[in-house]
Amino acid sequence: MQRIKVKDLLTGAELGKEVLLKGWVRTKRGNKFVNFIAVNDGSIINNLQVVADAERFSEEALKDVTTGASVAITGELVQSQGKGQAYEVHANTIEVLGKADPETYPLQKKAHSLEFLREIAHLRFRTNTFGAVFRVRNALAFAVHKFFNEHGFVYMHTPIVTASDAEGAGEMFRVTTLDLDNLPRTEEGKINFEEDFFGRSTNLTVSGQMEGEVAAMAFSDIYTFGPTFRAENSNTTRHLAEFWMIEPEMAFYDLKMNADLAEEFIRYIINHAIENNREDLEFLAQRQAEEDKQKPQNERQEMGLIEKLEFVISNQFERITYTEAIDILLNSNHYKKKKFQYDVKWGIDLQSEHERYLVEKHFKKPVIVTDYPKDIKAFYMRLNDDGKTVAAMDILAPGIGEIVGGSQREERMDVLVERMKAFGIEPEDMWWFLDTRRFGGCPHAGFGLGFERVVQFVTGMGNIRDVIPFPRTPKNAEF
Amino acid sequence: MQRIKVKDLLTGAELGKEVLLKGWVRTKRGNKFVNFIAVNDGSIINNLQVVADAERFSEEALKDVTTGASVAITGELVQSQGKGQAYEVHANTIEVLGKADPETYPLQKKAHSLEFLREIAHLRFRTNTFGAVFRVRNALAFAVHKFFNEHGFVYMHTPIVTASDAEGAGEMFRVTTLDLDNLPRTEEGKINFEEDFFGRSTNLTVSGQMEGEVAAMAFSDIYTFGPTFRAENSNTTRHLAEFWMIEPEMAFYDLKMNADLAEEFIRYIINHAIENNREDLEFLAQRQAEEDKQKPQNERQEMGLIEKLEFVISNQFERITYTEAIDILLNSNHYKKKKFQYDVKWGIDLQSEHERYLVEKHFKKPVIVTDYPKDIKAFYMRLNDDGKTVAAMDILAPGIGEIVGGSQREERMDVLVERMKAFGIEPEDMWWFLDTRRFGGCPHAGFGLGFERVVQFVTGMGNIRDVIPFPRTPKNAEF
Repeated sequence: MQRIKVKDLLTGAELGKEVLLKGWVRTKRGNKFVNFIAVNDGSIINNLQVVADAERFSEEALKDVTTGASVAITGELVQSQGKGQAYEVHANTIEVLGKADPETYPLQKKAHSLEFLREIAHLRFRTNTFGAVFRVRNALAFAVHKFFNEHGFVYMHTPIVTASDAEGAGEMFRVTTLDLDNLPRTEEGKINFEEDFFGRSTNLTVSGQMEGEVAAMAFSDIYTFGPTFRAENSNTTRHLAEFWMIEPEMAFYDLKMNADLAEEFIRYIINHAIENNREDLEFLAQRQAEEDKQKPQNERQEMGLIEKLEFVISNQFERITYTEAIDILLNSNHYKKKKFQYDVKWGIDLQSEHERYLVEKHFKKPVIVTDYPKDIKAFYMRLNDDGKTVAAMDILAPGIGEIVGGSQREERMDVLVERMKAFGIEPEDMWWFLDTRRFGGCPHAGFGLGFERVVQFVTGMGNIRDVIPFPRTPKNAEF
Repeated sequence: MQRIKVKDLLTGAELGKEVLLKGWVRTKRGNKFVNFIAVNDGSIINNLQVVADAERFSEEALKDVTTGASVAITGELVQSQGKGQAYEVHANTIEVLGKADPETYPLQKKAHSLEFLREIAHLRFRTNTFGAVFRVRNALAFAVHKFFNEHGFVYMHTPIVTASDAEGAGEMFRVTTLDLDNLPRTEEGKINFEEDFFGRSTNLTVSGQMEGEVAAMAFSDIYTFGPTFRAENSNTTRHLAEFWMIEPEMAFYDLKMNADLAEEFIRYIINHAIENNREDLEFLAQRQAEEDKQKPQNERQEMGLIEKLEFVISNQFERITYTEAIDILLNSNHYKKKKFQYDVKWGIDLQSEHERYLVEKHFKKPVIVTDYPKDIKAFYMRLNDDGKTVAAMDILAPGIGEIVGGSQREERMDVLVERMKAFGIEPEDMWWFLDTRRFGGCPHAGFGLGFERVVQFVTGMGNIRDVIPFPRTPKNAEF
């Protein structure tokens, strides 16, 4: 007999038939006449209830059917008389494939804290919360590929190990095969990286953008979706040392087209999750609502999770310039009452409190802020005609802050080289990047989106460590 | 006016209309009455021919319309009178967005060697060959996600930086933030990795399998698709230091189900490429045929590229045990005539020449070899009842060799621990991996597929460096 997954059994298509079910026991409860075994196989958040009559299954026969055990069960799929489920299986045979000793199995019936579950990240997938989070993550990842595929983008695997260090996006991890106990030296006594694996000093990438731009100058539209790294010693709920990033680059795009694409993209992937993972999101919405009850009034979410997602996909994002954003902040009562910790004036990098005010208090929806002062943005962003600002855009989302950072890229060779020098970057080190301007350059644009930030936004999880399978953070590389 | 891509223009849907086209000039030729400009935008291998009448466009006006320049062109889409294309654009306006100096632009009309193009990997996307290769790579990557999505698998991003070194899959790259010029030492004078970023010694992953197995014990079916690394000093056409791997892991699967899935998967993704990238594959087939003409008779492909792919998707893979494979080799004329360089006897690791004989000479189709001697396979493969072999499988493909390696996993705690010890692995270091056997373990299986190998197989490219955008190999981390 072929095993059928719980997700398919719960559609009722096999009603009245003998079926084979495999999965893990979530709970067992019963009385002297009957036992109810809840089985989950990860295909859906819901369990399938298996009814085991005491006449057929002795206490002894069910003694290893405990929380966490893996089981193979045959029986008839019938309509359930009980409440809470439409269908159930009346068991004919129950085989325990792998036991889970109740004395030592860490995931017993009671609810565990997210902190505790982080310590056993290899088992947390078996909980409702993390089952839902990672099914939603999966749906979002697939939607990313589907969106770009439908739009004719080419997926580029840009390099993870790189010798390029010109982007200035942050601290980097060294990659080496040198024997640290016996480092080769040059005649001057410096470490001789010519003897390292790649014949030079190499790092983990902080971004695939430069390689992506190069490819866009051939395919028009490309995207990356791969791991990126920051060696920042930030122990916060918002930072990971290893995270996944999506970076589309589009030839012949200006800033407005860039913003249009980013907005359409975010709506598309959220909509995909809502359409495909409704049960997961309903569970996560409930989880967030319960978590909110523990918080002071002013820290609670203004909308429920699903309400928030539906709001985002059915409302245009607000678009303002940085200069307008500064004006809004300066004119706010919040500012006048000196409620901002950091000062507001034209030229500052917007702080989290400023972004949250704009998004959560003023506009109450995602906001695209464009045209930032050139001095606070990267060298490759296109200089505007005012000479003061660049064609940058950040998308700010409620509850999460910056979710997208992008720009029109500087395609003018002379301006770009000047900006590189101003940032202390040696143009010759970037010869191949500059070749895209030297040969057939064109106006182009792109953005980067931190995938975990999006997963946080959609699942409502407050800590970024809870939306990636095995988080990498300072002092932590377990699993 | 909105730009329309060449791929869409070539369908003729906009026939008779004024259109806006953007892309890069491939060639310009003409006479005193008319110029023909071939424009490519990467959306499809074919160029769009633009006809520019000399009456409207002077020589001066077209002087910067040279190979490699980026252009924006408006004009009427009409049926072409010439041969070679169904549609062409009669230009009204031609704007050069970015010049490409004919004196210095490296990609002139003449054909370049693959070796030369590897040196300018940032520009090679603009050639027909690499345009086709990377569009096919994109199609295959999308097909990977589509296949697993349709089959209810959850995509897991397993960690890239890992402290785990127990898999013994090969040499590893160290990841560190320690200052090499000033390494912290313990009291005993050893390097103090407690002061490293992750508080311990860390490496780049060689496989996501272990983390994948853990997740399969919650979701039933998962897959990974991410970069993996080998610090082997192998300067061959088959090795990369950084490559992408796909690793599905399935709870409740035995070896046969594993092989069935792998075969269905390979057929599915090849079929997707044939259906979506026919023009690219036809070009690559022609390229391979021409390359073959330069080779001695006995090194030429037996089938054309598309013929080979269609053969693979319409024929069952052969399935034999390792023991049967050894018998076939021993009974071959090839063996009797002492044509194998390496000896054949039960217990050896099959050499490339043996695999090629089986696949290319004996069966003339992909072959799944199962049940290898336990001593030549990894510790985690399930020990068969004979005590001598393990439930391993390798899929061998014509012209490429091993394309998939997999096995049923050892789910029995006692057997697994014994095998770990035999391989010199400390079970305590793998506590979390063993937890999958300790708590609700079950029969399960999985496989790994080197993505670049598949891209090579489908595109017919002989060197693995030509199927990944920016190859990482010993002494090479350019771009």
